[in-house]
Amino acid sequence: MSHNAEKIWTAALLVIGDEILSGRTHDRNIAQVASWLQVQGIRLSEVRVVPDVIGRIADAVNALRGQYDYLFTTGGIGPTHDDITVDAVAEALGVPVIIDPEARAILEEYYQTRGGLNDARLRMARVPEGADLIPNTMSGAPGIKIGNIHLMAGVPAITAQMLASLTGTLEGGAPLLSETVGGWIKESEVADILREVEKAHSGCQIGSYPFFREGRTGANFVIRSTDRDELSSAVDTLCEALGEMGFDFTPGGI
Amino acid sequence: MSHNAEKIWTAALLVIGDEILSGRTHDRNIAQVASWLQVQGIRLSEVRVVPDVIGRIADAVNALRGQYDYLFTTGGIGPTHDDITVDAVAEALGVPVIIDPEARAILEEYYQTRGGLNDARLRMARVPEGADLIPNTMSGAPGIKIGNIHLMAGVPAITAQMLASLTGTLEGGAPLLSETVGGWIKESEVADILREVEKAHSGCQIGSYPFFREGRTGANFVIRSTDRDELSSAVDTLCEALGEMGFDFTPGGI
Repeated sequence: MSHNAEKIWTAALLVIGDEILSGRTHDRNIAQVASWLQVQGIRLSEVRVVPDVIGRIADAVNALRGQYDYLFTTGGIGPTHDDITVDAVAEALGVPVIIDPEARAILEEYYQTRGGLNDARLRMARVPEGADLIPNTMSGAPGIKIGNIHLMAGVPAITAQMLASLTGTLEGGAPLLSETVGGWIKESEVADILREVEKAHSGCQIGSYPFFREGRTGANFVIRSTDRDELSSAVDTLCEALGEMGFDFTPGGI
Repeated sequence: MSHNAEKIWTAALLVIGDEILSGRTHDRNIAQVASWLQVQGIRLSEVRVVPDVIGRIADAVNALRGQYDYLFTTGGIGPTHDDITVDAVAEALGVPVIIDPEARAILEEYYQTRGGLNDARLRMARVPEGADLIPNTMSGAPGIKIGNIHLMAGVPAITAQMLASLTGTLEGGAPLLSETVGGWIKESEVADILREVEKAHSGCQIGSYPFFREGRTGANFVIRSTDRDELSSAVDTLCEALGEMGFDFTPGGI
């Protein structure tokens, strides 16, 4: 993996799932993919969640794959009738769906001691023509890589395996570093400080994330930069200013 | 709220937040808004997450507000420099940002015993011209409703208050009903049944959601329909078929 400090590498995530849009399942893949991408030096720049409808998935794939360096999808690559991501991506790319011989062999081996390869399980060997596989050490059925698109499982534990398989294989840039300072501070009392510290450190962004816990108001201030020195300097300036105003704060956040 | 069984009312959710895209914060608003919309008879049809950048927010607002009956946003309406949702929505709609007199009065009262209304707090009275307010009984600063767009807080507990204020005020259709049947069943062993039951009940969709727990494989099958009788019939057919194949299953899911 080469690091190019100039270019910012970007990615989009497309979450495929009626179960997310119905509120039945709380998505856990957005945070998982986002955190993983940070380490790869790739910035997650957009997420979309769309229903299990081929046209909707295909439209989103075409909108996102051209706009960002990488596109990741989660969900819809299993054995049942509602697993249609492969068909949608093939439609988006204008290529046929084929049975991948390597995926078929992986599934044959995996299911040899698990009841055999039936028609439903064989669906998981279907790929858009021209694809490579993403190994899945947990449950056999591989993820799929075609062009800049990476099709991954919806079950978070399996997605994690696929991300592990991809680690270090994608070109990225300088990782975005972050430091957090938190306290039982109302963000509306320090809004000026936050703005001024951000302005004084051009490579830094500061986000303010308020919360309510134990009946009290607090906030975490997250400073982000690709430059470690600028980041340290901004954190120092912010802590100094909070101290001068008489606030207690906790490096690392609360 | 009138119910029209013919029309399917749709909504999109736009989550504004660098903190979600960085993986730092696990989003909890998608599931919360999705579940609330189900009860209102409105179908969540798309979610997008975009960074705290005015142009990106404005573009997404314009893409989504025309495509769906309702648009909800979460995040970016607080007192700090990174709270720019109001500016972005005003830009999208081509209207100026003004200080809303009612919002100002609410904030003056709320902060009377909390240190007074400073410039940062007054930012939370800014609205796109022509907006109405969404009451926030928790922390003063109101949400904002303009046209079919509803701007809500990013802190989930405050979002919940704003959704409660909106309950029953939006026109919706027949709520989408769902029933779940689950078991320690490999979905790849019942894929044919699921497809057949869905085909035999035209108003129903069946989703299959596998999981791994305690080292075992299971799945929940979620049957959805706006027609209660069709739904019951599909659930009965599915349970009968699973029983005939010798599977143990649990109505309500596991």
